[in-house]
Amino acid sequence: MATYKAPLREIGFVLNDVLNVGQLAEQLPALAEATPDTLMGLAEEAAKLIEGTIAPLNHPGDAVGARWNAGNVTLPDGFAEAYKQYSEAGWVSLCNPPEYDGQGLPFTLAKVVEEMLCSANVAFALYPGLTTGCFEAILASGDEAQKQKYLPKLSTGEWTGTMCITEPNAGSDVGAAKTKATPNGDGSYSIEGGKIFITSGEHTMADNIVHFVLARMIDSPPGVKGLSTFVVPKYLVNDDGSLGERNRLECVGIEHKMGIHASCTCQMQFNGATGWLVGKPNEGIQNMFVMMNLARIMVGFQGLGQCELATQNAIAYARDRKQGRASNGRAEIIEFPDVRRMLLTMKATTEGARVMAYETAMYVDIAHHHPDPAVREEAQDWVDLNTPLVKAFCTDAAFELGSTAIQVYGGHGFVRDHGVEQIVRDSKILCLYEGTNGIQAMDLVRRKLLMHDGRLAQRFFARVRAENQSDAPVGYLVRPLMKALEALESTTAWLRESYKQNPDAAGFGATDYLRAFSLCYLGYNWLRMAKAVSNSSDEAFKQSKLATAEFFATRMLPQVSSLCDNVKSPIEGLMKLDAANF
Amino acid sequence: MATYKAPLREIGFVLNDVLNVGQLAEQLPALAEATPDTLMGLAEEAAKLIEGTIAPLNHPGDAVGARWNAGNVTLPDGFAEAYKQYSEAGWVSLCNPPEYDGQGLPFTLAKVVEEMLCSANVAFALYPGLTTGCFEAILASGDEAQKQKYLPKLSTGEWTGTMCITEPNAGSDVGAAKTKATPNGDGSYSIEGGKIFITSGEHTMADNIVHFVLARMIDSPPGVKGLSTFVVPKYLVNDDGSLGERNRLECVGIEHKMGIHASCTCQMQFNGATGWLVGKPNEGIQNMFVMMNLARIMVGFQGLGQCELATQNAIAYARDRKQGRASNGRAEIIEFPDVRRMLLTMKATTEGARVMAYETAMYVDIAHHHPDPAVREEAQDWVDLNTPLVKAFCTDAAFELGSTAIQVYGGHGFVRDHGVEQIVRDSKILCLYEGTNGIQAMDLVRRKLLMHDGRLAQRFFARVRAENQSDAPVGYLVRPLMKALEALESTTAWLRESYKQNPDAAGFGATDYLRAFSLCYLGYNWLRMAKAVSNSSDEAFKQSKLATAEFFATRMLPQVSSLCDNVKSPIEGLMKLDAANF
Repeated sequence: MATYKAPLREIGFVLNDVLNVGQLAEQLPALAEATPDTLMGLAEEAAKLIEGTIAPLNHPGDAVGARWNAGNVTLPDGFAEAYKQYSEAGWVSLCNPPEYDGQGLPFTLAKVVEEMLCSANVAFALYPGLTTGCFEAILASGDEAQKQKYLPKLSTGEWTGTMCITEPNAGSDVGAAKTKATPNGDGSYSIEGGKIFITSGEHTMADNIVHFVLARMIDSPPGVKGLSTFVVPKYLVNDDGSLGERNRLECVGIEHKMGIHASCTCQMQFNGATGWLVGKPNEGIQNMFVMMNLARIMVGFQGLGQCELATQNAIAYARDRKQGRASNGRAEIIEFPDVRRMLLTMKATTEGARVMAYETAMYVDIAHHHPDPAVREEAQDWVDLNTPLVKAFCTDAAFELGSTAIQVYGGHGFVRDHGVEQIVRDSKILCLYEGTNGIQAMDLVRRKLLMHDGRLAQRFFARVRAENQSDAPVGYLVRPLMKALEALESTTAWLRESYKQNPDAAGFGATDYLRAFSLCYLGYNWLRMAKAVSNSSDEAFKQSKLATAEFFATRMLPQVSSLCDNVKSPIEGLMKLDAANF
Repeated sequence: MATYKAPLREIGFVLNDVLNVGQLAEQLPALAEATPDTLMGLAEEAAKLIEGTIAPLNHPGDAVGARWNAGNVTLPDGFAEAYKQYSEAGWVSLCNPPEYDGQGLPFTLAKVVEEMLCSANVAFALYPGLTTGCFEAILASGDEAQKQKYLPKLSTGEWTGTMCITEPNAGSDVGAAKTKATPNGDGSYSIEGGKIFITSGEHTMADNIVHFVLARMIDSPPGVKGLSTFVVPKYLVNDDGSLGERNRLECVGIEHKMGIHASCTCQMQFNGATGWLVGKPNEGIQNMFVMMNLARIMVGFQGLGQCELATQNAIAYARDRKQGRASNGRAEIIEFPDVRRMLLTMKATTEGARVMAYETAMYVDIAHHHPDPAVREEAQDWVDLNTPLVKAFCTDAAFELGSTAIQVYGGHGFVRDHGVEQIVRDSKILCLYEGTNGIQAMDLVRRKLLMHDGRLAQRFFARVRAENQSDAPVGYLVRPLMKALEALESTTAWLRESYKQNPDAAGFGATDYLRAFSLCYLGYNWLRMAKAVSNSSDEAFKQSKLATAEFFATRMLPQVSSLCDNVKSPIEGLMKLDAANF
């Protein structure tokens, strides 16, 4: 069975030695108490609960799955108890504002915990995960009465939350949503329609479930500009906060899925359910995107968690498993060059992606809390740029590394008991929900590159160039990184230009471009990690980091150029091919 | 649910227009009746049974799986009936020699049918697949009495076969096998030991199961040189061919796996079972490799079948599914550039791989049957070279394209009912069994490149160069193919040289090299396909082929150079990293 040990040494290295997490407490008055020691202390606490209580539920939860019966959903044994422990200890509300019963700690810490939770049990992580999403949406767009009514209970985890967006014919095309909201005359609305793929839509682990629903008011225009958001609780909430009658909504079925079996993916039917408008009419898409952007970062962390799980299990297995004899006379398969290639690919990807993900989380904190508006603005640029990278790269990597872990295990990896095949199955959804990874690539190319006259990417290029000046002691990284950067810069210019005449060309290359951008970002991260470790007295850690940096520089970073060549290839013949002739 | 329609148009194009399958009937007296028309007629017949009877069992077979109870294995409903129909129609014994009740048709045709069967239901395909493997092993190494006793029943499919090779601590390291064979004094042996991962090890679909078992005779040396092969039937066979008593062997459990649920993967215990030596003592490895090499080609075809299944379902879904609006005003997602990129990747891979796989099968026929020894020798060189390429490339592709198909379906792809997630789960085993794909890469680099002073690869290079001379009407392919070829040639020379001093360097780059070689091979195939189609009057087919050729030339073939650069990167720091420090 796959096991999980939180990589606290590595987490501390990234936070402190690479990203200087101390800047949060120093520069953000709201987070003054979140010193590095406090953050690491809390991460260690979380790790204990996650390793000891939640990780052991991962494999049995997959085997049993969530089960539906006549509108009710039963979760696997142990989930309700673990959720109670997890939420009562305050881990759900880590970065929620104290005025709504949150802990007021950095988003960064919440994401560090998210990574660990998602290594241990990504299906479990979705229950607090969606609760946080719902919290963020109401916090951003709700009125004060709504906030008072719903947020504290979402903070404590006594209630959980959902996002009800997708419909059978409205997936990537959100604007096609048909769910209808009719005013009841008393300020509330009657919500009518079917939603699918609703994570955590029904269960009895919490006293109430708060649905954040995208629907169309009866007099609203078609398309995305006619959508509004509503809060629709499973049980109506009385003014004194007590629970009233059951709302007219039900879970009419759950999906049978490739993975995340213990997470219920619900088909929800709203049968004239009572809901309340959140925010202004017809601004539903904007309201939803507040949550969606943070949700995309969350999904990136889910991917990172699964990358770590795949990597640490493959390494442990390869250290232990003996087959034949390597050139150094040893029999452990970690000594075989092809196995080593796989493990280094996994390490280089996971550790490099972690820096990108953590840095993004830190920028979320800075964008929220820094006293200087100019600093906040720059931080928000980074968040905007990084969100599609973190979402798509980390999740693609999770699936790929899950597959690589199976290869390391050989035939045993295909057997469910060993647990690594679950990584492939659980990870695939991460590449799909909150916008497929193709949608992320479009977001990067069609929005993020064009915003603010292209300054988002320019900030990145300038930062990498500055970091790449001082070459010692990692000369082997400097040249490949410069080459990658130059390819990325010229391709970025080409994309911005060609987008004007031929948006399809940009669309065709978007996925390759996102990967190229992410790999270049990881190159920058490996440069920073190599520098940070170069004076370390921990020789073992240093040897590992420098060898992995070298691997990344020589075997992964060069992909950037060929991906960039792909992006710029002509597409005329390809777009002209008749659909019927495929 | 995933559906399957045999791609007969495409199969005919590859066999006739690209590979000139007519040469088999013209040049090989043993196959004189296997004219192109006969072959296509039989392929059409097989397609009907496969599409109509076997494909519909794929999804329910996955849901139910094989079940073990007290030594017995129950297969999903419909499997036994379908197997009876399939074997009685003679499809199991297509290329078996007529003297042992086979049809005496080309191996090529058997593999074309294998592709179709493996698109329809790869779990089902393993029952006839292993039977064929067992047949080939006894045919190659058994004495005439053994052949008379076992082969006709394996041809008719009344009996099925297995290969019992792997043990818990002897996977890739076959030489560690401990199963023991003690002479009984009457010419038979008593077989004692446990085998794992035995596909089709137990079921009641056939009257008998013939196990081909690798074991060590009591006075044999350790390692691979002390292994022998034995035939060990589930029921002993009387001299008149009737079945005698139950042999002392049992299925003590089956694996719960990621995929191919309907294929039973058995733990077999031989408790002093009676077996008979096949071939000479201590030549088990050689005997096994006769079967293993053909089995590796078979697995490649399993991968090809799954590639086709993924590709045709993704195209059909993308033609139908509407979301938003593309630049040409249409809503079908096939019109979106990123979806088109995915579909073209799938087509370019599947169709290119099909030429490589079919060509390999044709060389097997030529190597067996050509009257001229020099032609046979050259054909065998091609088989030797291509075997690891077909096995590893087609199976890696199956997993990747299964994943791509899910992306095309979006969130719906993650739901089991849609059937494409099964492709990912079923395909992963293909990358593992009959030698992991890492082992295939080692076989290529450490054996195939060195054999006969390197002439195998030289034959390939010369062939591609000759084909690439006449550039019209596919100019866009010529330059990328030449660039790829040159990179591959110089990397091949480098590998052969560096292998002498530093085998680990060759090992480290082996997987990238195998992929580079395969992509170059596919480039050669796309060149041939583009030429073959250029005078076609079927404009729709021609447009499709030429657009896909262009896609492959501009977006996939360029990977060869960067993979080759990887192969030649230094590895010193990477091999020196202490296992403990990973």
